[in-house]
Amino acid sequence: MKSMDDLFYALLQDVYSAEKELLKALPELAKKSTNKTLQQAFADDRDETEEHLERLEKVFEGIGKMPRGKICEAMLGIIAESQHVIAEVEDGAVRDAGILAAAQAAEHYQIARYGTLRAWAELLGEDEIVELLSDTLEEKKHADELLSWIAEGGVNETASQRPQAAE
Amino acid sequence: MKSMDDLFYALLQDVYSAEKELLKALPELAKKSTNKTLQQAFADDRDETEEHLERLEKVFEGIGKMPRGKICEAMLGIIAESQHVIAEVEDGAVRDAGILAAAQAAEHYQIARYGTLRAWAELLGEDEIVELLSDTLEEKKHADELLSWIAEGGVNETASQRPQAAE
Repeated sequence: MKSMDDLFYALLQDVYSAEKELLKALPELAKKSTNKTLQQAFADDRDETEEHLERLEKVFEGIGKMPRGKICEAMLGIIAESQHVIAEVEDGAVRDAGILAAAQAAEHYQIARYGTLRAWAELLGEDEIVELLSDTLEEKKHADELLSWIAEGGVNETASQRPQAAE
Repeated sequence: MKSMDDLFYALLQDVYSAEKELLKALPELAKKSTNKTLQQAFADDRDETEEHLERLEKVFEGIGKMPRGKICEAMLGIIAESQHVIAEVEDGAVRDAGILAAAQAAEHYQIARYGTLRAWAELLGEDEIVELLSDTLEEKKHADELLSWIAEGGVNETASQRPQAAE
């Protein structure tokens, strides 16, 4: 890698792969959640992720490259953690809190990556690409806020009452 | 894992391990950066990370557990990415932009995890722990803002001028 174009292309492949992994993981997160609002948020997130992948494909097109991914170890790590929670937490309410937290880690990771991609696209003078990335970045921030709202709106509290209920 | 206490303890181990990995990685990030402000930011970050580990040890103490880590695959993935950048980017200015971006991904990941830990500690009624986690969370947010400021203050622009300079 020699230039900012190369760096941009490498990060684009990383983010593309991360979105593909997320798309595969979201149905399981929805299925293993018990809170209806959380289930719906994951279902909506899946639809949005498809759109984010389409936008990334337009970005690849914009820089004259074929869409391809490069394994994103960070996202695989975050997804692996959500799978540990699903496998190890028996109580549905406690599991919801753990799954939601892992999903927020995924959103935050992606907010950082899209923020960087957009900043670099601005410097490279790629206005159309900046717009595509801005749209996704705003949706990621909104998804994170929604998850916080769901956590504060009952998921965490219900989970925290579980040990008392079991005693 | 059966209760929120178990979930909290599991995430605490994950975050503890992530901080330890970061502590090991930061000197290399500082050494391989060419921008002086960025080097200084990584050196300061290393000192802060030691403090964050000490706070986490107090949190373990507060819940009556021995400090121990549990491999954090997400943080290992983010660090691996910074190492790819170091290995693959020849130009110092372009490498700075890539290293800085990886560091921001690490900060964002940790902001999500500390935010969750704090929210859970609040529900568990652990006021002293909430305070320890809040202090670190604010410092992580500040570190991320500082990195954005360094990126916008010249690192990205210098990097984006490289291909022209080489032609």
